[in-house]
Amino acid sequence: MILDTTCQLAYHTTEEVPTIFMLRPRSGWAQWIMREEFLLYPRVPVIEFTDGYGNLCQRIVMPVGDFQITVHCRAEVADQVDEDQTARLALVQHLPTEVLQFLLPSRYCQSDELISLAASIAGSVPPTYQQVALIRDWVHQQVRNEQGTSNSFTTALETLNTRRGVCRDFAHLGIALCRAINVPARMVVGFLHELYPMDLHAWFEAFIGGRWFTFDATYDRPRGNRLVVAYGRDAADVALATMFGNFTMQSMQVTVTPA
Amino acid sequence: MILDTTCQLAYHTTEEVPTIFMLRPRSGWAQWIMREEFLLYPRVPVIEFTDGYGNLCQRIVMPVGDFQITVHCRAEVADQVDEDQTARLALVQHLPTEVLQFLLPSRYCQSDELISLAASIAGSVPPTYQQVALIRDWVHQQVRNEQGTSNSFTTALETLNTRRGVCRDFAHLGIALCRAINVPARMVVGFLHELYPMDLHAWFEAFIGGRWFTFDATYDRPRGNRLVVAYGRDAADVALATMFGNFTMQSMQVTVTPA
Amino acid sequence: MILDTTCQLAYHTTEEVPTIFMLRPRSGWAQWIMREEFLLYPRVPVIEFTDGYGNLCQRIVMPVGDFQITVHCRAEVADQVDEDQTARLALVQHLPTEVLQFLLPSRYCQSDELISLAASIAGSVPPTYQQVALIRDWVHQQVRNEQGTSNSFTTALETLNTRRGVCRDFAHLGIALCRAINVPARMVVGFLHELYPMDLHAWFEAFIGGRWFTFDATYDRPRGNRLVVAYGRDAADVALATMFGNFTMQSMQVTVTPA
Amino acid sequence: MILDTTCQLAYHTTEEVPTIFMLRPRSGWAQWIMREEFLLYPRVPVIEFTDGYGNLCQRIVMPVGDFQITVHCRAEVADQVDEDQTARLALVQHLPTEVLQFLLPSRYCQSDELISLAASIAGSVPPTYQQVALIRDWVHQQVRNEQGTSNSFTTALETLNTRRGVCRDFAHLGIALCRAINVPARMVVGFLHELYPMDLHAWFEAFIGGRWFTFDATYDRPRGNRLVVAYGRDAADVALATMFGNFTMQSMQVTVTPA
Repeated sequence: MILDTTCQLAYHTTEEVPTIFMLRPRSGWAQWIMREEFLLYPRVPVIEFTDGYGNLCQRIVMPVGDFQITVHCRAEVADQVDEDQTARLALVQHLPTEVLQFLLPSRYCQSDELISLAASIAGSVPPTYQQVALIRDWVHQQVRNEQGTSNSFTTALETLNTRRGVCRDFAHLGIALCRAINVPARMVVGFLHELYPMDLHAWFEAFIGGRWFTFDATYDRPRGNRLVVAYGRDAADVALATMFGNFTMQSMQVTVTPA
Repeated sequence: MILDTTCQLAYHTTEEVPTIFMLRPRSGWAQWIMREEFLLYPRVPVIEFTDGYGNLCQRIVMPVGDFQITVHCRAEVADQVDEDQTARLALVQHLPTEVLQFLLPSRYCQSDELISLAASIAGSVPPTYQQVALIRDWVHQQVRNEQGTSNSFTTALETLNTRRGVCRDFAHLGIALCRAINVPARMVVGFLHELYPMDLHAWFEAFIGGRWFTFDATYDRPRGNRLVVAYGRDAADVALATMFGNFTMQSMQVTVTPA
Repeated sequence: MILDTTCQLAYHTTEEVPTIFMLRPRSGWAQWIMREEFLLYPRVPVIEFTDGYGNLCQRIVMPVGDFQITVHCRAEVADQVDEDQTARLALVQHLPTEVLQFLLPSRYCQSDELISLAASIAGSVPPTYQQVALIRDWVHQQVRNEQGTSNSFTTALETLNTRRGVCRDFAHLGIALCRAINVPARMVVGFLHELYPMDLHAWFEAFIGGRWFTFDATYDRPRGNRLVVAYGRDAADVALATMFGNFTMQSMQVTVTPA
Repeated sequence: MILDTTCQLAYHTTEEVPTIFMLRPRSGWAQWIMREEFLLYPRVPVIEFTDGYGNLCQRIVMPVGDFQITVHCRAEVADQVDEDQTARLALVQHLPTEVLQFLLPSRYCQSDELISLAASIAGSVPPTYQQVALIRDWVHQQVRNEQGTSNSFTTALETLNTRRGVCRDFAHLGIALCRAINVPARMVVGFLHELYPMDLHAWFEAFIGGRWFTFDATYDRPRGNRLVVAYGRDAADVALATMFGNFTMQSMQVTVTPA
């Protein structure tokens, strides 16, 4: 499907605020960016760089007063999420070097404290895609999707206690449990067609049988038509805007429509 | 100035031809990409990657028959090229590690054979920006800009012999002479406003006083309003299309207009 | 000073255990490796790679039974730790791209929850090296150095509560507080001459005035003669051995002597 | 086999000469560095970095007068060179991104001018390992190994004309012909057991069936017991010492003995 996505952010500040955005999707195996627009109002200088995960990042200094960013993107994305029940989990010694970092615990994904739980959830099936599918199902069943029950400090351990959260928390818990059984897992933020209410979305990917597969514990069934904006170890790495100063967010509008 | 650039390439092939394009400018210190469009007809899968110089590259397999690519870009670029007669050349031991590779000879820039010549051209002034300016002036004066006098195999040494060439050859000779006096120099391809006849253009950059400066030996005076598409050691690294098979190029159209 | 360091680790396993070691110091600005030896007994195949922080890592599969690793290193290191009370903290917008990742919260350094505390500790002096020195002093005064009061899950927030810990915990709290005032900070593990009892040691570095400075909150005064083995965001990145399986550590011996 | 290698270089200079060495082998798939020593006399500061090909490089400023470097290394290396007549050449579209650079022409390997020749040499056999083996054999048969017939400027095209050269020239011609049939090929310098007279050696690797294979056109049969010191596109990238100033090399001694 060809998707048109728009994300518009409006801020108000009373001081200059250095900011790093991560708002520009990149073309890759699963998505092709056909057209893109990145508008700043008022116009300020921008430096673009690629972070350690391959994300395109934009550094600006937000000026005093009102500031608005609009990112439009037209992209071709996959209608279906790939599944492969028979794909085997790699032994750690056979993993590519560049995915090893996604085995380690991170700010919001304390995999080091979840080893027993993860084994009890996933241990009943062979070491394949099915183990991650069981983890995804378990998180989906155990956690209730409820706005306002978590915040930007909430970790996978806390979500495990409260059993409530939003997409970000479902992803963190899924990631932490995967890493706890030595499956590389990473955070994804992006757009999802027909999300309701429309907003940015978070999910996770697990490395199985030599490639990354998409998992989303928030929903009861796989859904395609996703546009990835950024990858990272967890939410600390993929904030769409990291701001170093005081600001008020005045509005955020996201639209996703078929082209 | 805000520039709208378009580059349209049309090919005909009788076999599938794996191709690597390098056609998408990136935002950086001197340019900001506000809007971009990348259209393939017919549509084929594309994998995008970043090469060792930071260029965005697109891998496709060109299908049998007619194939067309169109890249539109709206970008804000600098009206003027920076100059700094007093900027000092760094001693080799003080150069940043990442620019050292631009001191080495490369396919079309045999700097290792030009050490005496370079010293005789640049040696009369202090080790500053002025040495590179002298090299640029010397190349501009010695080489005649003449279509059809060189080809894709032509090297800096050959240009030195024939004293004729096109923008690519002016750049190669300038680069080779800079490296011969231990000044890091790199090839640039991109768009230049008011180039006549309009086409893609090539020039070079030299690393002086901690940053890269733009030099263009093809013209008698500095001109701004450039949009960089790719950097490399020489033309071998920055071909806009590297094709592994047989093909006919049917047309190439470049337009650059103020927005 | 020229230091001879040895680290010998002995393990026993009942299954094959994939393991990643991070035990080989690299030459750099502050240390020069003159001689090095890396012995495995029994001998097994080793793959070496460089991780995202520049650390040399060794992948092996530890065989069933007894396994021993010995790393000897002779290196020239600085006698004194550099200090510069006047070095200014950079504004975030002026930081080099590659240090931005050390501003983010990480597994054991929840800087996002310490913003007020950090401001209250460091806010009384100008935005210079002195702010980090105040943070270091505060951690040193507030936390008691006591073996057995923390474990491998302990985070900076927990150390803040218990006010007890070991070198690793002093470093985590220092790092988290630095990041909370927008100063890039990273974890260091390595060897320290005259540490008592001798062991590996952990400390931190903060990025001030364009370079990294060494800070060690465990001790009351600066001490030189350090040999860095690995850098990372926190202890999750710099484990000297990350083992994916069951094992018993039978002994660990560290010696550091002047050559 | 376990090899002890030593390389000792002695220089005399009348000015300070910035120098980049590439003398420290790294552990990898085919070799494991067990012990290493790197001695400078007189002792000067050294900065170590990793270049774009993964080589460990050392930057120093050689002082005025006599200067000596000694590198000892004990390493375990493979007794045999792997061969696989059935390994298939990958289509360009299936090559990993990171090997694409080894398809391009480079300073001493003008593959762009050798397309017809390469096809005529290799075209009689299927697109497998055998094509590279034919290229290797052809170079071995056509070029005479003769000291003093080439120099540091000699390119593959020139070797093709004179049909004389040393190991470096055999490697360049082999590399250029491989690239001309779209097989990624790279230069290797290192040590070879039982080389006579003993010296550093150069050979090449070609990427076939998903991995690099070793080829050496200088000898009539495959020989194992090689210790790789550096990889690159050609000799321009892998000079063991790149010196930016005037110097006299007073001696160079290489020894390779079984441990």
